[in-house]
Amino acid sequence: MTSNIVLSEVEYNVVGKRHLRPDGVDKVTGRAQYGADIRLAGLLAGKVLRSPHAHARIKSIDTTAAAAGPGVHAVVTAGDLPFAALTREELGGDYQRLKFANNHVLAADKVLFKGHPVAAVAAESQHLAEEAVKLIRVEYEVLPPAMTVREAMEPDAPLLHDDLYTSELGQLSERPSNIAAHMAFATGDVELGLTQADLVVEREYQTASVHQGYIEPHNATAFWNADGQLNIWCSTQGPFVVRTNVADILRHPVSRVKVTPMEIGGGFGGKITAYLEPIAALLSQKSGRPVKLLMSRTEVFEASGPAPGTWMKVKLGVTREGRITAADITLAFEAGAYPGSPVMQGAACALACYDVPNGRINGYDVVVNKPKTAAYRAPGSPQAAFAVESVIDEICEELGLDPVEFRLRNAAKEGVRRVEGPVYRRVGLVECLEAARNHDHYRTPLEGENRGRGVAAGFWFNRGFQSSVNLTVNPDGTVNLIEGSVDIGGSRATIAQQAAETLGIAYDEVKPTVVDTDSIGYTMVTGGSRTTFATGWAAIEAAEDVKRQLVERAAKIWDTPIEDVEYADGVLSHKSDPELRMTFKELARQLLGTGGGVTGVSNVDPAGEGNSFGVHIVDLEVDPDTGKVTILRYTAVQDAGKAVHPSYVEGQMQGGVVQGIGWALNEEYFFNDQGQMMNSSFLDYRMPTALDLPMIDTVIVEVANPGHPYGVRGVGEVPIVPPLPAIGSAISHAIGSRMRRLPVTPGAILEAL
Amino acid sequence: MTSNIVLSEVEYNVVGKRHLRPDGVDKVTGRAQYGADIRLAGLLAGKVLRSPHAHARIKSIDTTAAAAGPGVHAVVTAGDLPFAALTREELGGDYQRLKFANNHVLAADKVLFKGHPVAAVAAESQHLAEEAVKLIRVEYEVLPPAMTVREAMEPDAPLLHDDLYTSELGQLSERPSNIAAHMAFATGDVELGLTQADLVVEREYQTASVHQGYIEPHNATAFWNADGQLNIWCSTQGPFVVRTNVADILRHPVSRVKVTPMEIGGGFGGKITAYLEPIAALLSQKSGRPVKLLMSRTEVFEASGPAPGTWMKVKLGVTREGRITAADITLAFEAGAYPGSPVMQGAACALACYDVPNGRINGYDVVVNKPKTAAYRAPGSPQAAFAVESVIDEICEELGLDPVEFRLRNAAKEGVRRVEGPVYRRVGLVECLEAARNHDHYRTPLEGENRGRGVAAGFWFNRGFQSSVNLTVNPDGTVNLIEGSVDIGGSRATIAQQAAETLGIAYDEVKPTVVDTDSIGYTMVTGGSRTTFATGWAAIEAAEDVKRQLVERAAKIWDTPIEDVEYADGVLSHKSDPELRMTFKELARQLLGTGGGVTGVSNVDPAGEGNSFGVHIVDLEVDPDTGKVTILRYTAVQDAGKAVHPSYVEGQMQGGVVQGIGWALNEEYFFNDQGQMMNSSFLDYRMPTALDLPMIDTVIVEVANPGHPYGVRGVGEVPIVPPLPAIGSAISHAIGSRMRRLPVTPGAILEAL
Repeated sequence: MTSNIVLSEVEYNVVGKRHLRPDGVDKVTGRAQYGADIRLAGLLAGKVLRSPHAHARIKSIDTTAAAAGPGVHAVVTAGDLPFAALTREELGGDYQRLKFANNHVLAADKVLFKGHPVAAVAAESQHLAEEAVKLIRVEYEVLPPAMTVREAMEPDAPLLHDDLYTSELGQLSERPSNIAAHMAFATGDVELGLTQADLVVEREYQTASVHQGYIEPHNATAFWNADGQLNIWCSTQGPFVVRTNVADILRHPVSRVKVTPMEIGGGFGGKITAYLEPIAALLSQKSGRPVKLLMSRTEVFEASGPAPGTWMKVKLGVTREGRITAADITLAFEAGAYPGSPVMQGAACALACYDVPNGRINGYDVVVNKPKTAAYRAPGSPQAAFAVESVIDEICEELGLDPVEFRLRNAAKEGVRRVEGPVYRRVGLVECLEAARNHDHYRTPLEGENRGRGVAAGFWFNRGFQSSVNLTVNPDGTVNLIEGSVDIGGSRATIAQQAAETLGIAYDEVKPTVVDTDSIGYTMVTGGSRTTFATGWAAIEAAEDVKRQLVERAAKIWDTPIEDVEYADGVLSHKSDPELRMTFKELARQLLGTGGGVTGVSNVDPAGEGNSFGVHIVDLEVDPDTGKVTILRYTAVQDAGKAVHPSYVEGQMQGGVVQGIGWALNEEYFFNDQGQMMNSSFLDYRMPTALDLPMIDTVIVEVANPGHPYGVRGVGEVPIVPPLPAIGSAISHAIGSRMRRLPVTPGAILEAL
Repeated sequence: MTSNIVLSEVEYNVVGKRHLRPDGVDKVTGRAQYGADIRLAGLLAGKVLRSPHAHARIKSIDTTAAAAGPGVHAVVTAGDLPFAALTREELGGDYQRLKFANNHVLAADKVLFKGHPVAAVAAESQHLAEEAVKLIRVEYEVLPPAMTVREAMEPDAPLLHDDLYTSELGQLSERPSNIAAHMAFATGDVELGLTQADLVVEREYQTASVHQGYIEPHNATAFWNADGQLNIWCSTQGPFVVRTNVADILRHPVSRVKVTPMEIGGGFGGKITAYLEPIAALLSQKSGRPVKLLMSRTEVFEASGPAPGTWMKVKLGVTREGRITAADITLAFEAGAYPGSPVMQGAACALACYDVPNGRINGYDVVVNKPKTAAYRAPGSPQAAFAVESVIDEICEELGLDPVEFRLRNAAKEGVRRVEGPVYRRVGLVECLEAARNHDHYRTPLEGENRGRGVAAGFWFNRGFQSSVNLTVNPDGTVNLIEGSVDIGGSRATIAQQAAETLGIAYDEVKPTVVDTDSIGYTMVTGGSRTTFATGWAAIEAAEDVKRQLVERAAKIWDTPIEDVEYADGVLSHKSDPELRMTFKELARQLLGTGGGVTGVSNVDPAGEGNSFGVHIVDLEVDPDTGKVTILRYTAVQDAGKAVHPSYVEGQMQGGVVQGIGWALNEEYFFNDQGQMMNSSFLDYRMPTALDLPMIDTVIVEVANPGHPYGVRGVGEVPIVPPLPAIGSAISHAIGSRMRRLPVTPGAILEAL
């Protein structure tokens, strides 16, 4: 791998260094505790009965035989949810939201996707639970499914929900529809802009449903004690979100729900929704015993949330010199069985790389008979980028413009207003484009038959939101760091680094621990590329709180006003008496004897999120006989703001690229005409392996985020955005035919050839 | 039970009320997790090999056969302790302390009590571990033991330690000795005081070794990961003390040791020392697997710390009117195998109930071939009170004075200086004596044959020390309270009450949780009657921190200076705009959207501990044929300062009385002439059961501690102090013969009759 960091503006002592990860040994020695490792006295095994149909009305459920099965302690259906006993009047405006949330967990009147939970059993063993589930009799009236976004938008499409009306600019439609929402952003005058263009290109694009493909399946263990205390252990990106969702569905106070996040074997956005937790909780409440539920891989595919399949139309007007004059974009995203696709984010990301004077973006959120979509790394942005960046690539071809040069001419930069409103602060797209242009990869011409190069840019907002950190100084001069952010990609290290940097102590003197929802302040999900930014911010503030208290303590020990004491580089000193000086360690040793320990805390909700951009270059070769694509070389350039731990930033970039490659070339939910997924295993759902890939080269650009003390932006999501269009364009160049549907499978390539 | 509270000075909303205990349902439904409930993947069972001899030199240990035993993963001896590889030069002044601490955990050159750990094994199952331990060959040279304090003080006594010299006023003796320390307190002129007396009484007293008798045996599970992280789960009163001790013995940084306190099945001072934890840790380090060690009841008796057996001499001079003129006291306490009996506390408590113008107290800490003593409820005070209060009872008999009246004439009160130095602030002994004098029990004459009444007073300091509490406000307006204090006697409730009172919210809106040493600031043991006082103080300070932040937030929401906002009774209001008003709950709901959550923390080391006193009255009857004593009526009066949770205070008073009754009448370590304990089971070591007891009546006196915001003093320990002398005196009155050795067994009574 070639790797380098350009433009680094500030050198820190701890931030920016490649430290050992605190959880490394636990993970490589098999000691890390994942959800499946939970063992409790009296633990029961649960199993969920799932719908075999993509769309059907439930006429009856008979659980009598199952409840009488050997070793069975509880059987639950939607009728056991508190929602079943509430009326529409009692719930008022909250009714539909709660109905959807409840029906998603356990289907009531209808099943809306194959794999939709219908009932669940808790029994003495996994085997007995599986046997018992077979004894549940469900009578269905099978209905025709609506499987794709275009189909589902047709006026005569099968309706998933009788009571779903299109929300459009605050108004509801008159007739029910599969279109849950229509949203629109606009700036300038698109029609005028189009008249100013020398070239207008309009194209349609489609992408398939794809899965995040995390290694560890969903799991949840719940224990509902007789006093109403509900403890949950699970694999989640957001224990506080699980707490909120479970409390909401089970109509139970959040303070009676404690969620302990176990180690997580990947999430990528797919482990935010609570699928199993409410069911496990109900089974525990009914049985009086702790209950563990585990998904199989097939259940993960069929019943957790994929990224949406999409249909998109992009019309761009440009001048001969390569200046964008207008853009008109329509995005229709599959929400899955219930409303809530990331079409809003897709719409906001679609044109975010460019300074577009006249733009309009329409987005449609459409329910279909597939599992409800979930977040997947930069949700919505990769699909939108595939459409927009592919059109730009066509335009560059048409006008004979260098694709990096074109993007530089139109690049978003400080002061540019995005189509949906916000004005950029200092961002690093220009620097990324320049780094790409100057890179050996881009400067080395691609030669050979059946080969193509693609270039694309990508955008992600990066998020802020609430985070909390507690820091406690130990008598040995180390610090315990308690956080609510689940560690997926190394955030224990990056948070600890920011605490250590702020305290002026060494990295390995801060010991980070992720704790349960009772033991730390509210902390939003690990997702949105927010963790190193926002929880890091919380660590900085907690460290400042510690420093403030240490200054007070030193002043007390020295019997001097606090104004006389300063704290710098981990040393406390008296401003005018050079004799009075203590290191952090020396003072730590004295704390217990001089008034007690010191704990610093913070709860933050930082503004100042720093948007990030990536620019990718890919070279590939197409085998004209088989249609197989081989990635020859791949370079990813990205603005990290400040790479707190460069190795993890590189890992995020490489991981995002690999997922993008899979999305572009191979991954796809394949459904038969009854709406049943036919490839719900990792043998049939083909994700890239190390053997399929070259080393992914990375270039970290550091344009400090002005909204964070160390310039951090967040890095996890944007690297999945450019691969889709970059690969699509590279294949198009290799075969001389524009590919407008993902994945670009060997079959599609052969057909195009 | 008659129960009442007298002198309550202030009424609070939450403090002083009898709330439900937060852990009640967990405990009565069997859901509470104790140390034995820990289950970890790959867990090994351990077993300790213990010395069969009370005193012997270890000539050799051969672990070869054990190590080769089936399923054996590790065998450890003292040679595996890091101490074995350190030299006296490296350790300097710390050498002897560390040597004793290490040898106590695993014997090196000598065994010093029957049950002393010599080696330990970790194996696949408990059975295999027990079999393997039998394969360890230890060659001993058996030595004569020194079993009692008087024996051990003789110049020709068998020496336990070749290198133990008597520490006396900072000097070490010339020759080694079993007397580890001699300490002395003095005030006034004792000889002059004796000349001012009309009556001088001098008597000798003895008490036997007794055990705390907690229900749950010691246990420890340790997991030493490959990165040096050592996790320990155990039954302890002080997880931070275990952390310190384990780190000290294993020469491991405290920050690499995490101790998780499980629920505790009683401690009474006996669960502060780390017995099994370092052994489990060593076995885990050697095997690479988690290891669990459990003590049997016999191991608990033979190898955990009892309260010391004692020999005491008391000389008191009094005037005819019943005014004490002088006191001269000698206390010799058995330390067990290593120095450190509570003789210092015994000496400081001995005369603490009285205003003694001329006093002298000498204390001796003496090693004997018994398990090293540990703390037991008001350590040292019950024994000293037995001696001093018995002499006072004799004096009252001799002078024909009422025993309550005598104590009122000499009672310690505000401004009185104790013999060891401190001057009392406001204390409640006079109020307790008056409550006793006015009580129906005392005003009802005792009639009948073979019956006697005893009255005695008792003292305990009550402690402060470090405590930490974190409070986090939940969106539903409840508060999570995180504390480091293990809950033995209801402290979850009493700490939560003080937080709720301070915040002005309801008791059940505060949810307390005891967490591990990584997740909270340093907190001293639950012991010393400090928890409700000091951790309560921490809760109050953390609540004040929350209030401060809520005022800031309200000011931000109302866009007004913080000076305009006030917080009272759980309501935030604008001082001049009556429209601006929010309850705690209303503001809690808005926190996440207005800048993030709110966490308040505190780390305290409060001065202001409030000494407490108890006065007990007992009526009993002696069966002249069998010597059996039946307690007819018992009333305990005690100053709680403020009874935060009166039911728990009453429970503490009753529990202390019951343990005192056992100590007075039945309990005793019985050793054969080889120093082997012959009654190491609950069948043979007779503790009182409910069938042996009348209801214990309680009177809570509330003389607010001026050093605590709610007047709390601490209540757990003092009630074990008066029963020993009260019962001793009552028996003496019943049989007409003074009993000066505890326990006063039926045999001793028959002998006296």
